[in-house]
Amino acid sequence: MPNIKLLLSYDGTEFFGWQTQPGFRTVQETLEAAIAKLTGAQAFANASGRTDTGVHAVGQVVNFKSDTRLPPPVLVKALNAHLPEDVVVRAAEIVPDDFDACRHAVRKQYRYVLHDGPVRDLFLRRYAWHVPYAKLDHAAMYQASRCLVGRHDFHSFETDWPNRQSSIRTITHLAVNRAGELVWIDVEADGFLYNMVRSIVGTLVNVGRGYWPVEQVAAILQAEDRRQAGPTAPARGLFLMRVDYETRQLPG
Amino acid sequence: MPNIKLLLSYDGTEFFGWQTQPGFRTVQETLEAAIAKLTGAQAFANASGRTDTGVHAVGQVVNFKSDTRLPPPVLVKALNAHLPEDVVVRAAEIVPDDFDACRHAVRKQYRYVLHDGPVRDLFLRRYAWHVPYAKLDHAAMYQASRCLVGRHDFHSFETDWPNRQSSIRTITHLAVNRAGELVWIDVEADGFLYNMVRSIVGTLVNVGRGYWPVEQVAAILQAEDRRQAGPTAPARGLFLMRVDYETRQLPG
Repeated sequence: MPNIKLLLSYDGTEFFGWQTQPGFRTVQETLEAAIAKLTGAQAFANASGRTDTGVHAVGQVVNFKSDTRLPPPVLVKALNAHLPEDVVVRAAEIVPDDFDACRHAVRKQYRYVLHDGPVRDLFLRRYAWHVPYAKLDHAAMYQASRCLVGRHDFHSFETDWPNRQSSIRTITHLAVNRAGELVWIDVEADGFLYNMVRSIVGTLVNVGRGYWPVEQVAAILQAEDRRQAGPTAPARGLFLMRVDYETRQLPG
Repeated sequence: MPNIKLLLSYDGTEFFGWQTQPGFRTVQETLEAAIAKLTGAQAFANASGRTDTGVHAVGQVVNFKSDTRLPPPVLVKALNAHLPEDVVVRAAEIVPDDFDACRHAVRKQYRYVLHDGPVRDLFLRRYAWHVPYAKLDHAAMYQASRCLVGRHDFHSFETDWPNRQSSIRTITHLAVNRAGELVWIDVEADGFLYNMVRSIVGTLVNVGRGYWPVEQVAAILQAEDRRQAGPTAPARGLFLMRVDYETRQLPG
């Protein structure tokens, strides 16, 4: 049965995360229901990873098996006609049978958006964490973040569920940018621990607010102790931006 | 009793417009309830003008009379603590007793946002009109709009409710801009007829989609007949950006 890869966006505000949970509205269940309506067959939607309640996706990647004969561009339109306004399929393609959106992901990028204006911006209320107390020192946040780039044990920046065998990950890129009253933090890594971006953001915000010196972040990383780090930033500012896969060589 | 001027933003999506209507959630009633809770006294919130169901405001202006002793910056925070997440007071000031936010407005600016990407952008679903059929020719829209600038009878661009004595207004500025898949139209005038911006936008979109030649807009304006113009664009893309008042001379 053909294996179909989807590029998906969703507004996480009104979803209880990605993964199906009986009695709750989730993205997985919503997408699977649209596939079933369109094709007449149940399919398992296999995402690059779960996202939590309130977390958004610009570029989530999913694969599923289906014998639909619809060409990918038609499939995109047909699925979107069956999806609610807070989920949208951006692209579809037929991929090799063994492509697995979860197991084959080699890199992901998340973005976290902060708003530090004195008055809350209601148009951003679902999409940014409002930190109104003082202008964030984004240059200090950037400096503080330098120690996180590279291969480290990020145990200080994970919430201990689910348990993992290793907390070692490699951050390949971490940027802090500002435009007006918006500060955003982009983090790219080969994999993310549970609540890793949100605890990094909570930690960097403590630096940006002047609570902690720049050097404290390196000490937190070395401590390998979640209690040393800052709070877990709220879900609403977090976006899964992109998932990368290895470009495979042609056999031969 | 002191006269207080407020600068107000709201997301119109979940309001039945500005004006109080029994049984419906409106911005006026919501703001007046917050004022009453804070000050213990009923007050009439007098806006620069009504906005319709679904129309947003970045810079609505309102005045009300109150004997609150709170200094304006404290009043802003206190009112915001009593307002729901889709309304926010951005600024407050004490103004002369005779200042009337409605009668003394001399100029307003509206912005209308269009999205012409092939796939709907769910993060903009409350804030833009999605026109996916073809790339809008924004340069043609701009050219077509030139005839609207200045003092004209805009009867072709008003919905006949409420009846007015005159449909003559002066558009002082009209711009069409694009960034990526977003096109936005800014219109500044000394006053606006009912649905004027939305019918101008519906007309310019017909030009941008190539249905109508650039010259047709001048013919529509001259016809003074609403049936000649394009459709009324949906409320969700419309923002009241700014209201200007005459800077009065000090007496002397």
